[in-house]
Amino acid sequence: MSTINRQLPDAQFARIVSHDSVVHLAGQPAGDRSAPLKAQTADVLRSIDALLQQAGSDKSRVLSAIVYLADMRLKAQMDEAWLEWVDAKNPPARACVETRLGNLGSQVMIRVVAAL
Amino acid sequence: MSTINRQLPDAQFARIVSHDSVVHLAGQPAGDRSAPLKAQTADVLRSIDALLQQAGSDKSRVLSAIVYLADMRLKAQMDEAWLEWVDAKNPPARACVETRLGNLGSQVMIRVVAAL
Amino acid sequence: MSTINRQLPDAQFARIVSHDSVVHLAGQPAGDRSAPLKAQTADVLRSIDALLQQAGSDKSRVLSAIVYLADMRLKAQMDEAWLEWVDAKNPPARACVETRLGNLGSQVMIRVVAAL
Repeated sequence: MSTINRQLPDAQFARIVSHDSVVHLAGQPAGDRSAPLKAQTADVLRSIDALLQQAGSDKSRVLSAIVYLADMRLKAQMDEAWLEWVDAKNPPARACVETRLGNLGSQVMIRVVAAL
Repeated sequence: MSTINRQLPDAQFARIVSHDSVVHLAGQPAGDRSAPLKAQTADVLRSIDALLQQAGSDKSRVLSAIVYLADMRLKAQMDEAWLEWVDAKNPPARACVETRLGNLGSQVMIRVVAAL
Repeated sequence: MSTINRQLPDAQFARIVSHDSVVHLAGQPAGDRSAPLKAQTADVLRSIDALLQQAGSDKSRVLSAIVYLADMRLKAQMDEAWLEWVDAKNPPARACVETRLGNLGSQVMIRVVAAL
């Protein structure tokens, strides 16, 4: 059987799950939910950087990302933070949809799958 | 070429698709849609257990899960059923978002990717 | 380290990201957004065919697909286009949810993961 490595688990889920040459991150919501969407997105992307580092990957090795926004009308703010973050030579496949989010007050959540 | 194994197919989609050491399940909606959300979630998780077993995997090998809820205000009920189900030593990466669901009356759908 | 191949990149994301024996496509919205949902869906599926071909895969090798619809009440139209497209002997795992979409006017977006 193939090997699975789980990091930062709590009772419900693990924030990092690595298997073969791929790492799956839990959906990352923003921490400071009083901030504007651009700052919330930058916060989410910092969390993702830290998790990828802990997994032994980094943003140049992200395969796919899905961005869940609470209000699609603010997408341009998310895109600004994204453009400041993304490795322009190694952009992932991405999708963006509007959904209400479970983490009350968080306006953005991003899920990432990356290569190890 | 890598090998793909499809199980329980109908005209539109297969409920189980295995490839290399990973299995992808179709989104699983609840069967009994008159039940409260906790019971609907438990029903979905029983379906997932059955599909994982048929694929040659089990809940201790789930890599990621995404939970689609029709009403995020009821998330605590989903979490109760989740906590009774999840393998506490082997929790997957998880995300939860609110979306309207195609299966009329189903309040929850879960998609899972697991290791073989 | 495992090898990643990115095709059709722009500043934000790549439309095709291949890694090991799997290819991840970016979410594909419809091009002609004045068309009815069935025609928009057929348009999305043609884009997916073209991207899969460029990646070295094809629709018989799709592992999973998620369909985001702007209006779930029109799902039957999407299903009609899907049935005309899907390889009936090799259907993927699929899920369908309703979300507002970022590409203004596009009523459908589909994300696909396929085997190489």
